[in-house]
Amino acid sequence: MGERQNRRIILAARPQGEPRDEDFRLEVKNLPSPGEGQVLLRTIYLSLDPYMRGRMNAGPSYAAPVEIGQVMEGGTVSTVMQSRSPDFAVGEIVLGYTGWQEYAVAAAGSLEKLDPAQAPVSTALGVLGMPGMTAYTGLLNFGQPKAGETVVVAAASGAVGSAVGQIARIKGCRVVGIAGGKRKCDFVVNELGFDACLDHHYAPFPQNLKAACPEGVDVYFENVGGRVLNAVLPLMNRFGRVPVCGLIADYNSTELARGIDRVPALMGAILVKRLTFRGFIVSDFAAQKGDFKRDMIQWVREGKVKYREDVVNGLENAVAAFQGLLNGKNFGKLLVRMAPDPTRS
Amino acid sequence: MGERQNRRIILAARPQGEPRDEDFRLEVKNLPSPGEGQVLLRTIYLSLDPYMRGRMNAGPSYAAPVEIGQVMEGGTVSTVMQSRSPDFAVGEIVLGYTGWQEYAVAAAGSLEKLDPAQAPVSTALGVLGMPGMTAYTGLLNFGQPKAGETVVVAAASGAVGSAVGQIARIKGCRVVGIAGGKRKCDFVVNELGFDACLDHHYAPFPQNLKAACPEGVDVYFENVGGRVLNAVLPLMNRFGRVPVCGLIADYNSTELARGIDRVPALMGAILVKRLTFRGFIVSDFAAQKGDFKRDMIQWVREGKVKYREDVVNGLENAVAAFQGLLNGKNFGKLLVRMAPDPTRS
Repeated sequence: MGERQNRRIILAARPQGEPRDEDFRLEVKNLPSPGEGQVLLRTIYLSLDPYMRGRMNAGPSYAAPVEIGQVMEGGTVSTVMQSRSPDFAVGEIVLGYTGWQEYAVAAAGSLEKLDPAQAPVSTALGVLGMPGMTAYTGLLNFGQPKAGETVVVAAASGAVGSAVGQIARIKGCRVVGIAGGKRKCDFVVNELGFDACLDHHYAPFPQNLKAACPEGVDVYFENVGGRVLNAVLPLMNRFGRVPVCGLIADYNSTELARGIDRVPALMGAILVKRLTFRGFIVSDFAAQKGDFKRDMIQWVREGKVKYREDVVNGLENAVAAFQGLLNGKNFGKLLVRMAPDPTRS
Repeated sequence: MGERQNRRIILAARPQGEPRDEDFRLEVKNLPSPGEGQVLLRTIYLSLDPYMRGRMNAGPSYAAPVEIGQVMEGGTVSTVMQSRSPDFAVGEIVLGYTGWQEYAVAAAGSLEKLDPAQAPVSTALGVLGMPGMTAYTGLLNFGQPKAGETVVVAAASGAVGSAVGQIARIKGCRVVGIAGGKRKCDFVVNELGFDACLDHHYAPFPQNLKAACPEGVDVYFENVGGRVLNAVLPLMNRFGRVPVCGLIADYNSTELARGIDRVPALMGAILVKRLTFRGFIVSDFAAQKGDFKRDMIQWVREGKVKYREDVVNGLENAVAAFQGLLNGKNFGKLLVRMAPDPTRS
């Protein structure tokens, strides 16, 4: 194994607007060696998620930005290749946060062992991982869906949106999804069981959304922003809740758009309809991980929560896949596979 | 008393933007007679409040709009002149909602008896009434101020803002007010005991606000909107709370302003800082009236909550006073006195 090399993707420049190919650099390095209490990992799956766009900026976000010249961060599922920790054996599969690279050394304490018998290991990055827990905690804590209410969720075929809608269905809500294109909308209704799904590319979108929500909207799970928010706002019912999870429509914006300042309309709706807008990130709810795992594993086993993965092969395709993610080109939870998944035949 | 006449102010037209004199009409009618279970009231004080602007519009607001040709609505303190109810005697002072008129007939069940020995009866329309309870419930339920936190409140010398700031002081917070003009700011600091007060007319207002909040802002009690919100937003701390009580800066707007759409900046701040924006009106908290009365009466008696009234004499001056209220011309809780207050010497 000594001759093997590690390929990794470096943040070469801070993107202005849409990330360009030149903002990244593929670098080849010698394999690192684990120190005491560390393990050497080979990445099977890298998770690509919208929040990564924020980490590429210098400005403040949830966490410190990725520095120029550093490996892009990200969640991974990996195989233990070498272990200098009593807690991990060679061949075990682990969840870590080792970034956009084929190999990594990680401290044993930063890893979580995965049981392939429980679920496909890739789900630790999706429905049973951060995106699934984002959906579960944001919807239940701040959306507080009650049976009979109407829940609207955008990016409905995505990792978070698909889980939000299915959990809301389990809670007895009418669920209306929003997605880009007929193929995604058909999947959301026919496979995921949403009551309706609207294509936001299709011209009379605000009118169609209104028709799909005859009793108004009680919960809008916000992960898009932009004109989807504009369309939902007039439909919100009194005491409606808007968990603010993401704003993918705005992530590539370099400045505020000229036009009409809609803040007074937004604030006026919050006031008169007594809405609650509440921002969150999943790490705020770390204490609820046990509840999430218990419920979500059961729902997946019972077929009440389904998931779809969009798997791209090869680290060299990660940048293009991430660029596509910001434009809605993925269809399901986006993963980059860098090595065969030994748990799948 | 049969010859007496009732003067009242009618909504003559729906204002477009700032209410004009022609949008109202002073009408003279014969005194009404109380039926069984009713009383005849003579208005002492009429309360003028910003929410009334919303009632003049046809569009949906909290409640049904005032109809064209109807008496403008509003809270009042009155003397019972005639009673056909066993619950009220002639000469008693009552709180009601009888509107912009000198006399009114009201159902006994719609009135609340006031005890002049407990507090000046005018306070039932201010610090011990709807504005005070708006401050108390909005700040405590949704602002959730903790000792050591920084609370910012606009319209700080007004009926709601002055109470918000003083309650936040009682809870151990650093309190920064915003008001229009040096005279109001001096009052807010010297009389009400706020830690600081900034004049939003004074040019480097955003910079001054930042300097006055060296540890950021944990609670922004929103009753203004517009550029005050723009100045506060960058200062909000993580997990900050914004009870949305009013938006007086926007009430006279007839359309959304052209310029820069700040919604992405607002939503981005909610997301990254995990802010909570929550609209409310005081009637949502009717169950907390007992708590409010108990606490506020005690605080007023102890001198911990002070209040200032701005009293205008004569119904004929109500329209001008209301127009001034929307432009910040009042200084303290705005009341129209239509008859001598028999409880004051």
